[in-house]
Amino acid sequence: MRITHAAICGSDLWFYRGVTQWVPGDRTGHEFIGVVEELGSEVRSIRRGDRVIAPFVISDGTCEFCDVGLHTSCQRGQSWGDDANGAQAEAVRVPLADGTLVRMTPAIAEDNRKPKSALSLTDVMSTGQHGTVSAGARQGGTIAVIGDGAVGLCAVLSARRLGLEHIISIGHNARRLRLAQEFGATATFDSRDAEVAQQVIEATRGGALCVVEAVGGQESIDLALRIVRDGGTVSFVGVPHGVGALDMRRLFSGNVALRGALAPARAYIPELLRDVESGKLDPSPIFDMRLPLDRVAEGYAAMDERTAIKVLLEVS
Amino acid sequence: MRITHAAICGSDLWFYRGVTQWVPGDRTGHEFIGVVEELGSEVRSIRRGDRVIAPFVISDGTCEFCDVGLHTSCQRGQSWGDDANGAQAEAVRVPLADGTLVRMTPAIAEDNRKPKSALSLTDVMSTGQHGTVSAGARQGGTIAVIGDGAVGLCAVLSARRLGLEHIISIGHNARRLRLAQEFGATATFDSRDAEVAQQVIEATRGGALCVVEAVGGQESIDLALRIVRDGGTVSFVGVPHGVGALDMRRLFSGNVALRGALAPARAYIPELLRDVESGKLDPSPIFDMRLPLDRVAEGYAAMDERTAIKVLLEVS
Repeated sequence: MRITHAAICGSDLWFYRGVTQWVPGDRTGHEFIGVVEELGSEVRSIRRGDRVIAPFVISDGTCEFCDVGLHTSCQRGQSWGDDANGAQAEAVRVPLADGTLVRMTPAIAEDNRKPKSALSLTDVMSTGQHGTVSAGARQGGTIAVIGDGAVGLCAVLSARRLGLEHIISIGHNARRLRLAQEFGATATFDSRDAEVAQQVIEATRGGALCVVEAVGGQESIDLALRIVRDGGTVSFVGVPHGVGALDMRRLFSGNVALRGALAPARAYIPELLRDVESGKLDPSPIFDMRLPLDRVAEGYAAMDERTAIKVLLEVS
Repeated sequence: MRITHAAICGSDLWFYRGVTQWVPGDRTGHEFIGVVEELGSEVRSIRRGDRVIAPFVISDGTCEFCDVGLHTSCQRGQSWGDDANGAQAEAVRVPLADGTLVRMTPAIAEDNRKPKSALSLTDVMSTGQHGTVSAGARQGGTIAVIGDGAVGLCAVLSARRLGLEHIISIGHNARRLRLAQEFGATATFDSRDAEVAQQVIEATRGGALCVVEAVGGQESIDLALRIVRDGGTVSFVGVPHGVGALDMRRLFSGNVALRGALAPARAYIPELLRDVESGKLDPSPIFDMRLPLDRVAEGYAAMDERTAIKVLLEVS
């Protein structure tokens, strides 16, 4: 598969910052779209020349977990960049192509924004969607999204798409919170305000039934457990780092569920792609910096310094 | 309300063991059934002479939380033994009687086992039911219940009642595990076996989609997170004591939900009572010791030493 567009993920910053180890030669990148150049002999559903999306996890599409839409638990699943190729590159070999890839309409390439939107489905937009769905979001309801990074912003967009009435975005970057409003947030709160939990509880008259935690730290998880309404659900869409003991009494007394939410992007891409192709869904504004592949290092620096929300790599 | 039968709860052992403070004069007991002797002027749905069940939490039955069956979060809710009377006693005043009490058929008193079964609905049987429901239990499915105390045993009974096909009971008391089998467990495992997690994973070919944690400690929560199947739910039905950091990566990668499950007994009593009255549901064997009220101290000692599963106090 020849890659046309790729992206840098927030999780790529772990090795960039030294939180996880990186050895020269390790292959990186798991968000990409492109064009099929060659086919293995067993591939059935894909044709040469197809424009395709690859989700951030490789899956066979046939096991018991793929059957129920949990492709991240695929029994033959793999990650990009381990044994497979990394996708901040000119081309990759795609294992299990029939189970993994989703075909796009060729017309998508004729538009300026749609390839970016399609690229977001490989990870962040599907993750935002999974966060809201996993939090039990329903039409007409109330949701609070903690975090104004790309995933938090996509969760807001997903909440609007699902028809939630009250969409609260909590972050600390004024520019990103403005984008949250454009994406559908009905109220925004500053996460650095010491009173933020109380403010959200008041605004929701007792807490939000659905909370998406899209930061990944102790403070953020603690805030989520404070602002969730009794009987509600907190989903978290990334591995929280450095999280110690949780307030188990709060979970217990309030009948609150804490749900891990590693997004099975493959399960969401077909429905989200239809909305991208028709123009109903446009997450493209999250890509606020674009670079050619050979300047990828500048992209890492910009995301590390939070001067960019998300970097688009224009590969070919 | 004149109390006919009361019980000692596992949570009563906290102050007995000095884990929580008890000051002479504190009132205890929150599991009881009895007969209405006098009525407040505003009571509408209860008559003098009614045999009634009181759930372990007082609720108004009219607020937004009671409306959705979450009586434990009632906006006017109270606990027995705080401002209200304690129920290891001859009689109690019942606040919010219309919202709190459930009437039984008078015939229930003519049977030897049914009053015990009705008594179990005040807490442990409703808690077992809430544990299975909160874990997402469905007919034909697989559930693992960790703990062979009264609540764990009631969760097994609830799972059978809900028609689960594979019901795994995990404990370390041979006599209690036999009772679990009588209650419907299709397999039992020894929680003290170092290989127990692996054994359950093998027996379920990859873990149980539903897990009820009915012990309340770090080891038990950790075991629950190991044996739950990807995409599944762990409910916990008591406040776990001394629980430190959880395996957040397991929750995340496996799309696992951890759900606190303080049981809104009031919501379950009507349907469970119908089955008790018709003879379809009989949790009475959990009461393996009975005492008159003035020998209640012996009951605490027996439960503390685990020589009794649960103690029935015959009051009047």
